[in-house]
Amino acid sequence: MITLRKITLDNRRAIFNLEVADEQQKYVASNLSSVASCYVLATNGGSPFPFAIYADEQPVGFVMITYGITGYDLPEIADNNYCILRLMIDREHQKQGYGREALKKTIEFIRTFPAGPARLCWIPYSPDNLAAKKLYDSLGFNENGEVCHGELVTVLEL
Amino acid sequence: MITLRKITLDNRRAIFNLEVADEQQKYVASNLSSVASCYVLATNGGSPFPFAIYADEQPVGFVMITYGITGYDLPEIADNNYCILRLMIDREHQKQGYGREALKKTIEFIRTFPAGPARLCWIPYSPDNLAAKKLYDSLGFNENGEVCHGELVTVLEL
Repeated sequence: MITLRKITLDNRRAIFNLEVADEQQKYVASNLSSVASCYVLATNGGSPFPFAIYADEQPVGFVMITYGITGYDLPEIADNNYCILRLMIDREHQKQGYGREALKKTIEFIRTFPAGPARLCWIPYSPDNLAAKKLYDSLGFNENGEVCHGELVTVLEL
Repeated sequence: MITLRKITLDNRRAIFNLEVADEQQKYVASNLSSVASCYVLATNGGSPFPFAIYADEQPVGFVMITYGITGYDLPEIADNNYCILRLMIDREHQKQGYGREALKKTIEFIRTFPAGPARLCWIPYSPDNLAAKKLYDSLGFNENGEVCHGELVTVLEL
């Protein structure tokens, strides 16, 4: 059973220590870096939502959603839409379907429109990250043709 | 001229890249780790105040103040008092008096009581960090006899 949980003083170290497999590290920033970015975004006009991903009572991953600004130059789609900027499952817990379940929970959360109304949810991903593309495709995302910092933009209607 | 400035989307990478000399790294967490802690504190009942330290227009260091909870087990003094939890000057900019000036500015800021009233400001420091002790002593801090995670607690009346 996958749940998304707030990052707290108690679970933060466990979350910061999660990491993807070596060959995936080029695709995703460290969780420490992502949570630091959350502070900077939250105090500079952004609306970040970071969550620990739990499988039952075990922390297995991390996801970070933004609304509007992401901290990077933005594709056109960013205005008033939600971005899943980071999604990772720890190397020890991959290949069990957790990423897919976590992404579904993330979309459910976004559909509560926690930072304001939106029409779309988008994810930037590296063109050679085929596992990611397959996952996003399977949940109804479609590339919109935008490229942002060399990453493709894939989009879901909310 | 030393100033304390907000961490923004524009200066964050410069701040995250600052680091102390090798022999000092045991004394202070990375700035990335500190700013990540700021997010967790801010969303779990704490009141962190991280600042970039600038010498004229050059980022040279980082300071992080907390009020009440720090994210660690707390000495008694933490209740309703301010803590200077982190203070660092980049290795390339040390020995120019910036640490002392930054600490003075930090105390000025704390004396605006940004998170609520307080009687004291305290700093935890490693007993073998003699350079830090000398600096704190010179600005009127005095050890109060508390030890927290092996660190001595030095205190200033506000």
